[in-house]
Amino acid sequence: MSTTLPTRPLDHATARTVVAPVVPSRSRLRPLGLGDVRIVGGFWGERQAVNAAHTLSHILSRLESEGWLPNFDRAAAGTLPAGRRGREFSDSEVYKYLEAAAWELGRRDDIDLERTFRGVVDRVAAAQEADGYLNTEFGREGQQPRWSDLEWGHELYCLGHLFQAAVARERTRPGSDDGLLLVALRAADLVCEVFGPDGIPAFCGHPEIETALAELARVTGDARYAAQAALFVNRRGHETLADIEWGRRYFQDDVPVRDAEALSGHAVRANYLAAGAVDVAVESDDDDLLASLRAQWSRTRGRRTYITGGQGSHHQDEAFGDDWELPSDRAYSETCAGIASVMFSWRLLLAGGESAYADLIERTLFNVVATSPSADGRSFFYANTLHQRVPGVVPDPDATSPRASSSLRAPWFEVSCCPPNVARTLASLDAYVATADAGGIQIHQYAPAEIRTTLDDGREVSLDVATRYPDEGTVRVTVIHSTEGAWTLSLRVPEWADGARVRVGSADVVGEALPVSPGWAVVRREFRAGDVVELELPMAPRIVVPDPRIDAIRGCVAVERGPEVLALESVDLATAEDVGEVVLDVTAPPVEGDGRVWVSIADRAPASDGWPFGAGPLDADAEPTRVALVPYHDWGNRGPSTMRVWMPTT
Amino acid sequence: MSTTLPTRPLDHATARTVVAPVVPSRSRLRPLGLGDVRIVGGFWGERQAVNAAHTLSHILSRLESEGWLPNFDRAAAGTLPAGRRGREFSDSEVYKYLEAAAWELGRRDDIDLERTFRGVVDRVAAAQEADGYLNTEFGREGQQPRWSDLEWGHELYCLGHLFQAAVARERTRPGSDDGLLLVALRAADLVCEVFGPDGIPAFCGHPEIETALAELARVTGDARYAAQAALFVNRRGHETLADIEWGRRYFQDDVPVRDAEALSGHAVRANYLAAGAVDVAVESDDDDLLASLRAQWSRTRGRRTYITGGQGSHHQDEAFGDDWELPSDRAYSETCAGIASVMFSWRLLLAGGESAYADLIERTLFNVVATSPSADGRSFFYANTLHQRVPGVVPDPDATSPRASSSLRAPWFEVSCCPPNVARTLASLDAYVATADAGGIQIHQYAPAEIRTTLDDGREVSLDVATRYPDEGTVRVTVIHSTEGAWTLSLRVPEWADGARVRVGSADVVGEALPVSPGWAVVRREFRAGDVVELELPMAPRIVVPDPRIDAIRGCVAVERGPEVLALESVDLATAEDVGEVVLDVTAPPVEGDGRVWVSIADRAPASDGWPFGAGPLDADAEPTRVALVPYHDWGNRGPSTMRVWMPTT
Repeated sequence: MSTTLPTRPLDHATARTVVAPVVPSRSRLRPLGLGDVRIVGGFWGERQAVNAAHTLSHILSRLESEGWLPNFDRAAAGTLPAGRRGREFSDSEVYKYLEAAAWELGRRDDIDLERTFRGVVDRVAAAQEADGYLNTEFGREGQQPRWSDLEWGHELYCLGHLFQAAVARERTRPGSDDGLLLVALRAADLVCEVFGPDGIPAFCGHPEIETALAELARVTGDARYAAQAALFVNRRGHETLADIEWGRRYFQDDVPVRDAEALSGHAVRANYLAAGAVDVAVESDDDDLLASLRAQWSRTRGRRTYITGGQGSHHQDEAFGDDWELPSDRAYSETCAGIASVMFSWRLLLAGGESAYADLIERTLFNVVATSPSADGRSFFYANTLHQRVPGVVPDPDATSPRASSSLRAPWFEVSCCPPNVARTLASLDAYVATADAGGIQIHQYAPAEIRTTLDDGREVSLDVATRYPDEGTVRVTVIHSTEGAWTLSLRVPEWADGARVRVGSADVVGEALPVSPGWAVVRREFRAGDVVELELPMAPRIVVPDPRIDAIRGCVAVERGPEVLALESVDLATAEDVGEVVLDVTAPPVEGDGRVWVSIADRAPASDGWPFGAGPLDADAEPTRVALVPYHDWGNRGPSTMRVWMPTT
Repeated sequence: MSTTLPTRPLDHATARTVVAPVVPSRSRLRPLGLGDVRIVGGFWGERQAVNAAHTLSHILSRLESEGWLPNFDRAAAGTLPAGRRGREFSDSEVYKYLEAAAWELGRRDDIDLERTFRGVVDRVAAAQEADGYLNTEFGREGQQPRWSDLEWGHELYCLGHLFQAAVARERTRPGSDDGLLLVALRAADLVCEVFGPDGIPAFCGHPEIETALAELARVTGDARYAAQAALFVNRRGHETLADIEWGRRYFQDDVPVRDAEALSGHAVRANYLAAGAVDVAVESDDDDLLASLRAQWSRTRGRRTYITGGQGSHHQDEAFGDDWELPSDRAYSETCAGIASVMFSWRLLLAGGESAYADLIERTLFNVVATSPSADGRSFFYANTLHQRVPGVVPDPDATSPRASSSLRAPWFEVSCCPPNVARTLASLDAYVATADAGGIQIHQYAPAEIRTTLDDGREVSLDVATRYPDEGTVRVTVIHSTEGAWTLSLRVPEWADGARVRVGSADVVGEALPVSPGWAVVRREFRAGDVVELELPMAPRIVVPDPRIDAIRGCVAVERGPEVLALESVDLATAEDVGEVVLDVTAPPVEGDGRVWVSIADRAPASDGWPFGAGPLDADAEPTRVALVPYHDWGNRGPSTMRVWMPTT
């Protein structure tokens, strides 16, 4: 039992065949892709099923009705800019849809989806210009010239998403004749020509293409793309882009990546850039850059991250705040920032193997990514507040919501980056479950799953993971097949799991439960079919206290259960309509009952309109009553409501 | 001694001659204008002197160099839109400059300023079109058509400021031949024609013209303008303007003014509109509307106002937040919102006479309006945060700051509404000191001043006010001249002044000090020359505790002294560089010494980058040390610093 893993570098040759979004040429851990791991149900399996059955078609329908996909047809027909609809980055949503569909087609065969996918690819390909340029917003008569607005134009950002779609397709359907990879490569070649060492010495206001180019290099073996990614990362931070209202920090052009102390500026941009910078550091053996990114991750996690894993404290510029600036009520915590944070953490996890990265991924998946989509997969949170003060308005199901925040999920947004980002993440989630290294297999996220892979030495291993996590805390890994010789199975013990235990046995023998500390439960043995490694995670609800430097939640506590952050929602209140009118009675610990977590609350004295500064604090004056909390990811599903994660105490 | 005043309606005939920004046709209190009241020194007199000596010329110089005044020359020359500079509302800053200069010329003769004033008026007048239209951004070939963008165009807003400048000029120099009033009336006639009962059934996205038209009606006696103001107020709130990202609440078009429960949306817009709505209610005897506005004021003060009097909790839309949403670190508290709040409160004070309105005016003047300008009157805060987490950057003195917030004042802004707004407020501040009614005189704000006026029955009264307020709490009012018969002198006792005392005597006899409660100290007698009424306000520093519903400052206290909110600034710390690293020791009360207020603080335990949720709160572990606080309005004058008003306690 240890927090560090035994180590040996990845066999580079193996990497090229992995069916996963991120496949580094060198790393501490080797990703196990969709060919190796299959989530077969449970919390995430249900969400993947909804994603496949409803979300993908919902997105495609909106891409058509909003005109964002027809923009490509107009480009092909040469009629643009007349009739173009959507914001300057709307092309990217089409590409994220393609990426999501590609991963979904990597999970299962689906003739209809395959046909749809190819149809969209054809429309995209038809819009590509002779020299490889592809964007419906720039470059034509009546439009701004190509590359004339790097600050806000998002041309390279859009291409980044195109490349990621092509990578997903090539990994899930190598050598497919649909043509998407060719479209991507022609565009990537143009980018390398235009922005290469002798080209325009600049980069995109919205990072994305960096990580995409790195992956394109990995999937094709063409080092030019990796070099271009490195150029983009290293050019940044020298005040190349124009100053804007919020300063160049907004798009990370204030400080070179390697000199930053924490992520700052626009939270999605910052995380996409950090993810790309890890790729660049890994591919170019730049250990200083990698060390800096690790330190930035730590500082960001320790001082600029919400309890949900959400990031971004400002609505105004969708940006990180200063250290400790984490307001619950104005939490922006954009869904895309959560996804981008998972991308950054995952790359550091592969590079170094520390369980803390997987801890933050789990927290963010359960409390940001899972929070965004509704149960039917057809509406979404864009921002993820931790405190809703007034019940929101029910969004018009046929309208495009201009609002980034509400207390209710909306079917679509004027800026609709989040829905397809959720879709591509869920469709590729199997790839974030487990990894391998020279010594064995590591399981990072717990879901009912089948793992069928080979160790680095070629030995085949089959494992089944059975669990009702996060409803229950038992994770049972059964060895279905193993061959001679010892290897190591490592199970992540989350940072919150004080009191976890692990038990190693076989089909016949139940082993002794041994205590295991947060980090890794490491079992090395000569496994045989029928062997069982069972992790028991403590699932009793926990009271959580914040660092006192976080001004916004001083005097408050939250309640967590397993990986889930819980919330108090006003629809569960009997005696008050507003969660602001109650306080938590911390003398009564939270308890479980009827499948929910219950706490004790008391009503505040009535509010007045008097001057609110001067008198001593009001005391709660009513008898405590019991109220059930809801998992944060489930809030807002029962109509307009007020809600809070952090609760003031008596 | 009472919180209510004896009452009799104002003599309407008197009102027309008052030299003040607001002169209602009917009101509980009659304003005493610049002809009646003269601030002769002290806290406000010094600021007025700096305003006159430096700020006005600083503003004019920027209006020239930024091209905002030359825009009028280009309009007159017929060369627009070529060369036009500044935002769509830049005309208004020229008008606010004119208003400020007009008030300044009402305070004292100044041949140079008079010449400058007339020069600017000539350039503005030359740009007016034949039908009275006046705006440098709209209506010409190559520009958007007139009135085509009521949401954002600010055309009527700009004209409102033009009208206020003309009103100031006409009141301070009745019948002046400079032509400004004529320019204003021609534009106002056009507005009444275009937006009248049979005209465009809409209004401006930024309220301002409502209160301006009401005052134009008062100064000219032309009821059409008041009727147009009423039309604009009553049309609002029916979703006439287009929806925008932040909803129609942003420009108060979501709910009719009389149906609102509190101010909401953009804080400057909301207060300007409320001020105009009071004018409309007063002029049209609409007591229901007036009652609604009083209730909105109370709810806004009680739940949406910072301890400084500042308003506006969101940077994003410069808007009010929900009830109790008052983050210190993201306080927007725009200087203009403070000024607009003073305008709203002042109109309600005149209408009803309740001291609470003057209380909020005092708080806002000392802690928002006085905070904005630097000591030299050449740089300004635009936003007024209550918690600066990181030291700001020194603004380039020659540049135009695009940033609405910094820890240091900037000489100018891309949107530079605040500097001329401060200038016009300070130049007319004498008019906010005192009022009269049928029974006597009321003093609302304390400054060394001369009051020379007549009571409603024609009796002449002269008073001198001597005070070192707010350094000291004694306000000594000496009767210089009075005639036979009793009248009433009422002195406001601020809401914070528990333990105030009043003493009535003569040149020879020192009266007994009698306790007086917050509200009004009312002295009715047959005053003779040499009589003295002396108010003693308790100036010991006070610990202030917030309503526990205000989540953002739970577990914190602030310190006030008199009308001043105090702040902890890092330049005063010996043992820490960041005010976030200390806590207040509340067992040691604040004390005065060396002209400052001292508190006891302790250092926090060192911060880490660990996951910040889960462990119990860190305790301060160092010995308490003493540190001096600074008046909030003085912060940021000693270089980059961190600062906080609300301090966590041990």
